[in-house]
Amino acid sequence: MKVQDFKWKKGITVKEMVGSFKHLGFQSIELSRASEVIVKMKKNNAKVFLTFTSNMVTSGLRGFFAQIIKLGMADVIVTTVGGLEEDIMKGIGEKFEIGKFEADDVELHEQGVNRVGNLYINTEAYMNFEDYINPILHKLYLKKKRWTCSDLFKEIGLMLEDEDSILYQAARKDVPIFCPAITDGAFGFHLYLFQQNHPDFIVDVVQDFGKILLCTSHDEKKGVIALGGSISKHHAILCTLLNGGAEYAVYMTTAHKTSGSMSGATTNEAKSWGKVKDDSDIATVIGDVTFTFPLAMINALEELDEEGLL
Amino acid sequence: MKVQDFKWKKGITVKEMVGSFKHLGFQSIELSRASEVIVKMKKNNAKVFLTFTSNMVTSGLRGFFAQIIKLGMADVIVTTVGGLEEDIMKGIGEKFEIGKFEADDVELHEQGVNRVGNLYINTEAYMNFEDYINPILHKLYLKKKRWTCSDLFKEIGLMLEDEDSILYQAARKDVPIFCPAITDGAFGFHLYLFQQNHPDFIVDVVQDFGKILLCTSHDEKKGVIALGGSISKHHAILCTLLNGGAEYAVYMTTAHKTSGSMSGATTNEAKSWGKVKDDSDIATVIGDVTFTFPLAMINALEELDEEGLL
Amino acid sequence: MKVQDFKWKKGITVKEMVGSFKHLGFQSIELSRASEVIVKMKKNNAKVFLTFTSNMVTSGLRGFFAQIIKLGMADVIVTTVGGLEEDIMKGIGEKFEIGKFEADDVELHEQGVNRVGNLYINTEAYMNFEDYINPILHKLYLKKKRWTCSDLFKEIGLMLEDEDSILYQAARKDVPIFCPAITDGAFGFHLYLFQQNHPDFIVDVVQDFGKILLCTSHDEKKGVIALGGSISKHHAILCTLLNGGAEYAVYMTTAHKTSGSMSGATTNEAKSWGKVKDDSDIATVIGDVTFTFPLAMINALEELDEEGLL
Amino acid sequence: MKVQDFKWKKGITVKEMVGSFKHLGFQSIELSRASEVIVKMKKNNAKVFLTFTSNMVTSGLRGFFAQIIKLGMADVIVTTVGGLEEDIMKGIGEKFEIGKFEADDVELHEQGVNRVGNLYINTEAYMNFEDYINPILHKLYLKKKRWTCSDLFKEIGLMLEDEDSILYQAARKDVPIFCPAITDGAFGFHLYLFQQNHPDFIVDVVQDFGKILLCTSHDEKKGVIALGGSISKHHAILCTLLNGGAEYAVYMTTAHKTSGSMSGATTNEAKSWGKVKDDSDIATVIGDVTFTFPLAMINALEELDEEGLL
Repeated sequence: MKVQDFKWKKGITVKEMVGSFKHLGFQSIELSRASEVIVKMKKNNAKVFLTFTSNMVTSGLRGFFAQIIKLGMADVIVTTVGGLEEDIMKGIGEKFEIGKFEADDVELHEQGVNRVGNLYINTEAYMNFEDYINPILHKLYLKKKRWTCSDLFKEIGLMLEDEDSILYQAARKDVPIFCPAITDGAFGFHLYLFQQNHPDFIVDVVQDFGKILLCTSHDEKKGVIALGGSISKHHAILCTLLNGGAEYAVYMTTAHKTSGSMSGATTNEAKSWGKVKDDSDIATVIGDVTFTFPLAMINALEELDEEGLL
Repeated sequence: MKVQDFKWKKGITVKEMVGSFKHLGFQSIELSRASEVIVKMKKNNAKVFLTFTSNMVTSGLRGFFAQIIKLGMADVIVTTVGGLEEDIMKGIGEKFEIGKFEADDVELHEQGVNRVGNLYINTEAYMNFEDYINPILHKLYLKKKRWTCSDLFKEIGLMLEDEDSILYQAARKDVPIFCPAITDGAFGFHLYLFQQNHPDFIVDVVQDFGKILLCTSHDEKKGVIALGGSISKHHAILCTLLNGGAEYAVYMTTAHKTSGSMSGATTNEAKSWGKVKDDSDIATVIGDVTFTFPLAMINALEELDEEGLL
Repeated sequence: MKVQDFKWKKGITVKEMVGSFKHLGFQSIELSRASEVIVKMKKNNAKVFLTFTSNMVTSGLRGFFAQIIKLGMADVIVTTVGGLEEDIMKGIGEKFEIGKFEADDVELHEQGVNRVGNLYINTEAYMNFEDYINPILHKLYLKKKRWTCSDLFKEIGLMLEDEDSILYQAARKDVPIFCPAITDGAFGFHLYLFQQNHPDFIVDVVQDFGKILLCTSHDEKKGVIALGGSISKHHAILCTLLNGGAEYAVYMTTAHKTSGSMSGATTNEAKSWGKVKDDSDIATVIGDVTFTFPLAMINALEELDEEGLL
Repeated sequence: MKVQDFKWKKGITVKEMVGSFKHLGFQSIELSRASEVIVKMKKNNAKVFLTFTSNMVTSGLRGFFAQIIKLGMADVIVTTVGGLEEDIMKGIGEKFEIGKFEADDVELHEQGVNRVGNLYINTEAYMNFEDYINPILHKLYLKKKRWTCSDLFKEIGLMLEDEDSILYQAARKDVPIFCPAITDGAFGFHLYLFQQNHPDFIVDVVQDFGKILLCTSHDEKKGVIALGGSISKHHAILCTLLNGGAEYAVYMTTAHKTSGSMSGATTNEAKSWGKVKDDSDIATVIGDVTFTFPLAMINALEELDEEGLL
């Protein structure tokens, strides 16, 4: 493939732009490759594991994740609990604010504002979350005493009324949401308070490991789309590995492999799983997921739509 | 403080070098500041939360973490399960190999070798881990059916016989080890298999949230030393936040704040917790933890030792 | 401004997408801000300094830079010599190849292939460049003996016949191209060989400093769009500084400010120049320029075009 | 080589610490490898090209660079002009201040303070530089009209009286200093003003290219130690390439290869030069040079000193 000079034409679409990336160097071509791998996953009926970290839900990609689930582009979700809390907050009407990385944090604190990068969340949002989640925990407890995280989140999803919610769409499409560190957030605090008064209430993370393990098999083709790092990415890789390895892998991250972290681990290691043989089935894109993921995924959606596969 | 030209003198010690960093720009001065904050934590009797990710245990910092616990420099540990698995593997004699970032992953796979950055772990190590952990799970199950992660790891630590082990030293010093995503690793798989035959075996992560919450209080001074990001860092911050915020914070990472991730979040946010008012009590150091942490911590240890505070 | 959930609609244009970025966190909003600053520069008739490094020309953005110059969006160019060599190579028919970051470099060397990231340039291209440039140096030498770099590149631009060439468009639009390290490339080698036989041939970099200094003034509004770092960025900032500081600044880079490098320096320093008072006139975007720049610039071009300002 | 648990012992030296890095993963082992390559360069009598960017001189590594030159560890220097200006400023008594990355830039501007990362330089320093450099330019002009940059800096070095000065030590040890973009700084401005009144004053960068080219040969062994990126690194690589390629290469940087920049280019490309065959002769270390370089170089100095080779 030759490098070709990129040029603007009036009204250029995202699909046309990502099409041009096939002929541009550095991360553009990698992004174009990632988009092709996503198309392949779908065409080959792979079970798709989509993983993301909480900050991506904070960022406003939440509606896009919900849309992707609705369109059948993700079969299993793995994420951290903060993002699910925020999905619920937004689902009950909370709004987040766009701010500045260089804000005065002492001043923000006095105003009851919590900063996540250049985004602000009011402390009030956490109080509203508490008011919303507590009656739900009571309701679920009446049903049974011992819950897996994925069942718990499915029930909550069924109660939400917001089409832009990840939990709402996942519940309706029967896409399980795994959250291996369910206590690492405000949700954990409320679970703890609830358990104080209901000592037989149990969140069974071990049972949930069985659920993610059995949600696919050695025989099925598997694909991983990992956005960011953390346990979300690791958990999906671990599950596909125990099922013989994924055939397709797309990693999008700002981390680099040089410090040996999970966030920075590349798709090349997918080869060491022993199933991926072909370079055309893996791609790693370095860059902020708030633009790399929409670019790659939209191009894939447009292609699949044109071929009647959406 | 003026910039002063750095110079080598024969036989220079780490303490002398980090002392010079006080007069060097960019990350050197930040590293020197981090070291001072660690000294302050100790002098002011703060409860110290030390968090790290699995890859740091893989790297060989394991023995240093164990030593730090033994020396009373860490009161609470938060980490991911992979590192604890490897602590056990090494504790029963396993050796890891130093390799190359640019290895041939297909070839490694054929040899049964798993790559983590430029380190190699034999698949055999995981089999030996399985053989070791299963009888322990049986033994613990006989004691009781419902375990918190921290209790579980304390029991394992008491069984180990390796002074360089994190679990061994933590158990003996009564330093709790929290691991909010205990199933996210080989350990999770073995817990799952065990539960298949013992359905009443429960790992109670909700109860453990209460344990970390109550391991300190609003009245106590608190310090966080967070190495890398992930849920380890987030969990320690969450716990200190619910106890009124930490007075001291040192973050060491290769991630940047620009993508809004937990790994890249700076200590400035500690100010938004409302307790840290003074810039001299927080420090963020960007760089590979395998050298930034030993440099900063050794300097702190030497200073405390000189003052008879170790 | 509130965060709004991003969603795909069929056939979405780049302008619509970047429009959505106004409501997304992390680098998306910064990219959207950068686009607005570019629009402002143009609307306020600022003199625009566009700087880029050689690898961006290699990447295939070359045609886009040429188009931008043709459209009157850049008034002064500052760059490194490697990119200008490649602009000429491509102008005389050379094609570069898209390859792999993880290529076998020993093998590539045997094939006479030079790697720049995931792009390949044949050694032959450098030979053809030599054959092309030598007669030109003779021709120019006959005109006069002492040349500034900017004059030299203007003459070469006038000889090229390729509308996608940066030099071609700049020469025709009378946009000066400054190259403060003109000898740092194959071009330097050929200048040296030529001077061996023509000792009175002089490239006068000092005189060129006067040219960039006088290409604007204290009274004129000035804007800097710096892609990547290096001396290109520094030289443009230096020139605008000596002319009282730039009113507008957009920096796009993968480097971070934490190591004190020019590549990672942020637009906040523009405030220390004393002219930029308003946060809405500066923006720093972290990410691979091969996609951040097209996204931000295309959005600006579409907006200006709609308002009849292109 | 096996991973070995790192541990502190009281009074540990830098040499002992870097020795331990041989058994630690990620960037520690790479740093240890870099140190070994530096020792090899020296033992095999390679001509050593040391390159650095201006910010490293600002940082306080200046005295260390001067010491290294004095010890005969660098035979050729390539750098950017800002660092040489600062070397002179410090040589005539200027002091820089250690500050904060998050400073209030508007306030700094009002105080006449210029920020470089977390370092501050007073505007006054630039005025004192002007007062110092102008009489020197007059003196040199009387000697001859046409100067290469390397000759110019040698003359200035001979006039300085500061043993911690790079220019001072290089002049005395006859180590040439190349500076391919000599006008990219305050120095360029003063050269320009001087030329206004002395139009026959010429800085001949083309002739200097010949000087760097001929300062080594195909027959001589060559080593490159490149700190940071920019034209300094590129120029040294270009020169060794035209002389058949370097046998040894150590790159230390915070940039990554993923964007195709010179700053992030790895030593693997050294293999594509066709001379380096052995992995043990190249090393790339990712991290802030203010600590990676002292660690690696001090270990090399101690080793060479022990063997009587310093």
